[in-house]
Amino acid sequence: MTLAADPPLRRSRHDRELRGRAAKVIPGGMYGHMLANERTMPPSFPQFWARGEGAHTWDADGNRYVDFLCAFGPMLLGHRNPLVDDAASRQAAMGDTLSGPSPRMVELAELLTSAIGHADWAMFAKNGTDATSTAVRIARAATGRTKLLKAAVAYHGANDWFTPRYAGVTPQDRANIVEFAYNDPASLEAAAAAHDGDVAAIIVAPFRHDAFVAQEPVDPAFARAARALATRIGAVLVLDEVRTGFRLDVRGAWEGLGVRPDMTAFSKALANGYPIAALVGADALRAAASEIYVTGSFWYSAVPMAAAIATVQHAIEIDAPALMKEPGERFRAGLEAQGDRYGLPVRLTGPVQMPLLIFADDPDKSTAFAFTDAAARRGVLLHPWHNMFLSTAHTVELVDEVLTLTDAAFAEVAAARRAGS
Amino acid sequence: MTLAADPPLRRSRHDRELRGRAAKVIPGGMYGHMLANERTMPPSFPQFWARGEGAHTWDADGNRYVDFLCAFGPMLLGHRNPLVDDAASRQAAMGDTLSGPSPRMVELAELLTSAIGHADWAMFAKNGTDATSTAVRIARAATGRTKLLKAAVAYHGANDWFTPRYAGVTPQDRANIVEFAYNDPASLEAAAAAHDGDVAAIIVAPFRHDAFVAQEPVDPAFARAARALATRIGAVLVLDEVRTGFRLDVRGAWEGLGVRPDMTAFSKALANGYPIAALVGADALRAAASEIYVTGSFWYSAVPMAAAIATVQHAIEIDAPALMKEPGERFRAGLEAQGDRYGLPVRLTGPVQMPLLIFADDPDKSTAFAFTDAAARRGVLLHPWHNMFLSTAHTVELVDEVLTLTDAAFAEVAAARRAGS
Repeated sequence: MTLAADPPLRRSRHDRELRGRAAKVIPGGMYGHMLANERTMPPSFPQFWARGEGAHTWDADGNRYVDFLCAFGPMLLGHRNPLVDDAASRQAAMGDTLSGPSPRMVELAELLTSAIGHADWAMFAKNGTDATSTAVRIARAATGRTKLLKAAVAYHGANDWFTPRYAGVTPQDRANIVEFAYNDPASLEAAAAAHDGDVAAIIVAPFRHDAFVAQEPVDPAFARAARALATRIGAVLVLDEVRTGFRLDVRGAWEGLGVRPDMTAFSKALANGYPIAALVGADALRAAASEIYVTGSFWYSAVPMAAAIATVQHAIEIDAPALMKEPGERFRAGLEAQGDRYGLPVRLTGPVQMPLLIFADDPDKSTAFAFTDAAARRGVLLHPWHNMFLSTAHTVELVDEVLTLTDAAFAEVAAARRAGS
Repeated sequence: MTLAADPPLRRSRHDRELRGRAAKVIPGGMYGHMLANERTMPPSFPQFWARGEGAHTWDADGNRYVDFLCAFGPMLLGHRNPLVDDAASRQAAMGDTLSGPSPRMVELAELLTSAIGHADWAMFAKNGTDATSTAVRIARAATGRTKLLKAAVAYHGANDWFTPRYAGVTPQDRANIVEFAYNDPASLEAAAAAHDGDVAAIIVAPFRHDAFVAQEPVDPAFARAARALATRIGAVLVLDEVRTGFRLDVRGAWEGLGVRPDMTAFSKALANGYPIAALVGADALRAAASEIYVTGSFWYSAVPMAAAIATVQHAIEIDAPALMKEPGERFRAGLEAQGDRYGLPVRLTGPVQMPLLIFADDPDKSTAFAFTDAAARRGVLLHPWHNMFLSTAHTVELVDEVLTLTDAAFAEVAAARRAGS
């Protein structure tokens, strides 16, 4: 491959200029999970993005990428999906943020309660964090208890108690969090036993999707044990589908296992990029959900709800999770075969709709950084340490194009290794 | 006035039907600050809204109202302002929620830091609660202290520690809140002295805008005392402009007093209805702001930022707060004169851009409910116990039309009083 020896030119003048301006008016130049700097992302990754279309995205300099970040989840049906955008435009022509909710709120609640196996009611918010926090507040109101059991390391939002970085967080903020090990029923039982009578909720992701490490499917026995424990001790089982929603199973991620949570939090993909979060729950929690006070200035806005209705209806119609399987498996098998061939063995862990790259013998992620950097320069946007996302716009044909580019990226990294650089 | 004896017909079939459906799939049928039920709002108030245009809004049954709720603040330049909507559409044609921020983020941060007197940097989020909570987290990170001083009753968001209703809230959530009395420098000093060495922040609204009671302008001496105290004890002064932003002073609400906070939280009106919040702050807090971890799936979306740029630029150009003064004063004077004339004395408290109705001798709000109900049936949407909002689409001519309708509403209430009902 000549590409290996000759990495394509990449424009970056606008991105550099924008970073310079951002450094003056935004703390650290950027913040949050989309921060792209020398410590968090490979050097060729842009910080600023100009546009998206289907599975493609363009950075501020006009470089085009096949986007395997999908805005870190929201982009389920491809950027600027016409079906979703049309529904949003029709609503926007009437009104978005009005002096109360629109009929779309009722329609969306009806859709979610009919689509999600365990859902009898729905509430809406803006951030995934709003949905997980509201779930915990409802669980506490319902049980009169305080403790929250969560898996160690697991991310469930960025508010004072969930946030993974503790600057500015008080000991009281985290006083009621008790950790267990994902997929380890004994550790979950022990955590509950240590706070006997005071466990309000167990919050858990459908599979283990911590950053930096291999993703792990849930052990069905663990899911069943969590359900049984919650029922036995009168605690509330909350499934955090903020990241996974509508990519694993449109009926709810654990519906196929026959394990039903008491509440599920959604956000990200729910409206294909329009800002909304939802919490759905079972009848037993309806009274507590009415009792708490949560709200936000834009929680009842009509446009994201119209977009969510279109997104969920379409995702169900086409069975979005199933549709992503063939391209996702081809992507996984293709990358893994290329890694083996170039002596850079890599595994794509987790569901094929949301894979995370793990290179062998790569504790400092230097191989992951080198490879994703080489791929970015060739127009493939991957992530070196966070799970990626496919959308329904990522077709088998597109994956085949991508594999040509990643082959060249592997070749470049392998050549550099041989050259000792 | 014949209208007094003959209140206009009002359609409500769709609203009733939607409430019935909502009761099945939404806890309590509705939640949060936009809840309209028999306890919270007059009987004629609709719960569901179909559209908005300028200063008008239409409920789900097609009844038209002059909207003095303005979506509880967001609607600064009128519903569906073409200038803002065009900027949003142009951005939407490129992309909204992408795999990183767009150049709009830098442009908006540059605009806010140039517009707001004390602002050297800006961060963005979705909810007003995100902005106030982030401010407190930054203050704690900067000071290494824990306590937050806030005015009793004052609302600064709906997260676990700010929320006004404590169902599902643990004692630990509120352990670091210390209350003082608004406009009372001695109580503020006492609150700080009681936690000497551990005060991270003082958070305060630009004026006292608690629900149910008369609004109070800030005493400039209190504002200066809060500033001096914060500086003296090394605490951070946070101004919560979520509700007031761009309605009182486009440079920041206390800029005219010569009192500069260390951080200010904005949301609601910032993008004329598009969902966004901002926290701006002074250089001294830049490092702490970089250190904390906050984020959200839609915090970097480009469309609300494009809308915010258009909104803020236009609000500055036309001096939106000044523009609302004449209509606002006419509205206040007109309503107060009508109340006096009909023997139902009422005062519009607070700034004329955000007035709150207080009737004399009305502890149970029955007069406020009766009057706002009669006004709603005539197509004027007022609020019986929360501050209202004007927009720049509320012209003097429109206020004069409104006063004809409110005159009839007063006449109806006065007649009912005379009839003893």
